[in-house]
Amino acid sequence: MKIVEMQVTPVAFPDPPLRNSTGVHEPYALRTLVKLTTDDGFSGWGETYGGSAAIAGLEEARRHVIGADPFAIEALRLKVGDPRSFSPLEVASLDILGQALGQPVYNLLGGKVRQPIEFAAYLFYHFDCDLYGECLTTEAMIRQAHRLVDAYGFRALKLKGGVLPPDEEMETLRALRAEFGPDFRLRHDPNAIWSVETSIRVTNELEGVLEYMEDPTWGIEGMAAVNARVNVPLSTNMCLVAFSDFPENIRQRAVDVVLSDHHYWGGLRATAEMGRICETWGMGVSMHSNSHLGVSLAAMLHAAASTPHLTYACDTHYVWIEEDILVGGKLPFTDGCMNVPEGPGLGIAIDEDAVARMAEDYRKCGQTTRDDVGFMQRNYDPTWQPLRPRW
Amino acid sequence: MKIVEMQVTPVAFPDPPLRNSTGVHEPYALRTLVKLTTDDGFSGWGETYGGSAAIAGLEEARRHVIGADPFAIEALRLKVGDPRSFSPLEVASLDILGQALGQPVYNLLGGKVRQPIEFAAYLFYHFDCDLYGECLTTEAMIRQAHRLVDAYGFRALKLKGGVLPPDEEMETLRALRAEFGPDFRLRHDPNAIWSVETSIRVTNELEGVLEYMEDPTWGIEGMAAVNARVNVPLSTNMCLVAFSDFPENIRQRAVDVVLSDHHYWGGLRATAEMGRICETWGMGVSMHSNSHLGVSLAAMLHAAASTPHLTYACDTHYVWIEEDILVGGKLPFTDGCMNVPEGPGLGIAIDEDAVARMAEDYRKCGQTTRDDVGFMQRNYDPTWQPLRPRW
Repeated sequence: MKIVEMQVTPVAFPDPPLRNSTGVHEPYALRTLVKLTTDDGFSGWGETYGGSAAIAGLEEARRHVIGADPFAIEALRLKVGDPRSFSPLEVASLDILGQALGQPVYNLLGGKVRQPIEFAAYLFYHFDCDLYGECLTTEAMIRQAHRLVDAYGFRALKLKGGVLPPDEEMETLRALRAEFGPDFRLRHDPNAIWSVETSIRVTNELEGVLEYMEDPTWGIEGMAAVNARVNVPLSTNMCLVAFSDFPENIRQRAVDVVLSDHHYWGGLRATAEMGRICETWGMGVSMHSNSHLGVSLAAMLHAAASTPHLTYACDTHYVWIEEDILVGGKLPFTDGCMNVPEGPGLGIAIDEDAVARMAEDYRKCGQTTRDDVGFMQRNYDPTWQPLRPRW
Repeated sequence: MKIVEMQVTPVAFPDPPLRNSTGVHEPYALRTLVKLTTDDGFSGWGETYGGSAAIAGLEEARRHVIGADPFAIEALRLKVGDPRSFSPLEVASLDILGQALGQPVYNLLGGKVRQPIEFAAYLFYHFDCDLYGECLTTEAMIRQAHRLVDAYGFRALKLKGGVLPPDEEMETLRALRAEFGPDFRLRHDPNAIWSVETSIRVTNELEGVLEYMEDPTWGIEGMAAVNARVNVPLSTNMCLVAFSDFPENIRQRAVDVVLSDHHYWGGLRATAEMGRICETWGMGVSMHSNSHLGVSLAAMLHAAASTPHLTYACDTHYVWIEEDILVGGKLPFTDGCMNVPEGPGLGIAIDEDAVARMAEDYRKCGQTTRDDVGFMQRNYDPTWQPLRPRW
């Protein structure tokens, strides 16, 4: 079996004006879809970041992909090098293998160790928009949380913070705790926008409220300085994002929980290996998310289903998209959980007309990279600077 | 697909009186073969340590195996717990999956990253025996090395040391270097029988002669004390034998090279994960061996073929057995290397008559555990004590 075709399709889909520490989401989220086809007619899909850099990385990898045996995953990894470019190629290869072998991808990763897979509600402060109005206060955030909990059944709530002054966000978290009670697990993610001092103060004040605090401050040194002074576990998807980050993180015990993400760790097999390292050093594992479509979601579900060491509910932006590219529409949540698709490969069917529409939107939207800072400056606050630390 | 039968067969096969730091090999080497059979008629084989403890561990695991889906490898690992008991079950499961899917096991482990797989000649001092005479001097060891190099084409030579006083073994290694030249890579393995002081002295005197020194002294603390004072890389299969050994080893930088062994690391998938940890912390990987038959060898070949981070030629005792249980006899070396079997599963066919003969030998031989110390005392030196450190 040989890969004979590699189709790279940039797509764009509507995104609400979600806030974060660097600015605000633009009207479209960008992703890149990869479709690999073999000489015997199997097609597999992968999905990764959007924009010109991701596309360039995939095009750079093309010469290693065409003609490759889809079973030779590690050989392809060594050739491609960059884990971000390799990741969607690995997922598409596994999708092909699963179809060729009549097995769900999780069975090519060691089999299922959990079902269903729990997710956390991803709460965002956001500017005014048609669908959701505005959410920049504690009261509005409580309404948002109720909307997501009612619609999807989540039992864990993650607040994307670093938007309002820390004491206001603390008020929001305390209000969420009061509203939903101690059975709901809460997380806070200020995206490294606080100083070490602010991080220590706020994290300690939220002891007993949070299951973990995610990236309160910048860098391994900063996180280690915070971790030495707090009891709440610290998690990260910013200061530990590659295997080469482990040694120094572990030397300093900068973080307690790693948010895995197959898109930058280098695929689903690498995610399991990352989990083994975390298990070995007594660290927890959760799962990170960017705005994504159903191919990434399916890959996340297969990784989550087969990775033994995954110790927290996963994050996903999936509730914030209106339309997916899957035949049959979006995958459903039940009680805040999803089941891993059971069919061969990723277990999903792609609606190529929907892909074509989103590809057309990519061409029309004029965005070629993610620019939360620029969009904030141009549309909401001309004086905006993503200063770090802000508080 | 379900596993419906688990056959555990203890076997014994002749072993020469090979010396090591604790004593001498008994007349028979013991192994345990595991054959799993599924409801749709596939059978897979695994092989592990011999003797009553290994058998008891497998029998303890039986309740988790019968009825299990052979794809659910990680779930079985979590249930079985003990990596030594799990390992042959994982190998047998992968053998089944490969046959059911029509794929060699290496393709279920990420595909092939190297071919052929290089091995080192395993040189042993030994007492007198019919096949090889006696080898307890430098001159005899040179003859042994020539015999193995001529017969199999090895380009790496490993000396099982800790048998003669350190200065005599140094003389042997220098003579090997003089005889075979710098293109042959040399290793020394005194099995932790030296003091820290002796280890430092001998290792430094052999700088430029050895590619690595294996387990000169006992324990993480001892190895770290040696490593701080030598430039020759230190390798181990004694002080880093489980994932839980990594953190302290890495804190102290006790070793530079880990000798992998799927039999105690917990299978072929765990071997690759161990390799990823070594890669992450800048450590090398070689492969350890005990006396073994062709099922273990095939498993080692599939692990070696598919594990990206394997940085030295592998060890194997395979040249010291006269007969194997494979249809067609022993797998051949070419230029010191072997090719991974290319058929479905492990790619080997088992001669069940040969297994039955070796099972009969197990029943007759009277050995139920490995006892190098007792055999030394009873047959060669009644005053023998395996004191550590000896020198």
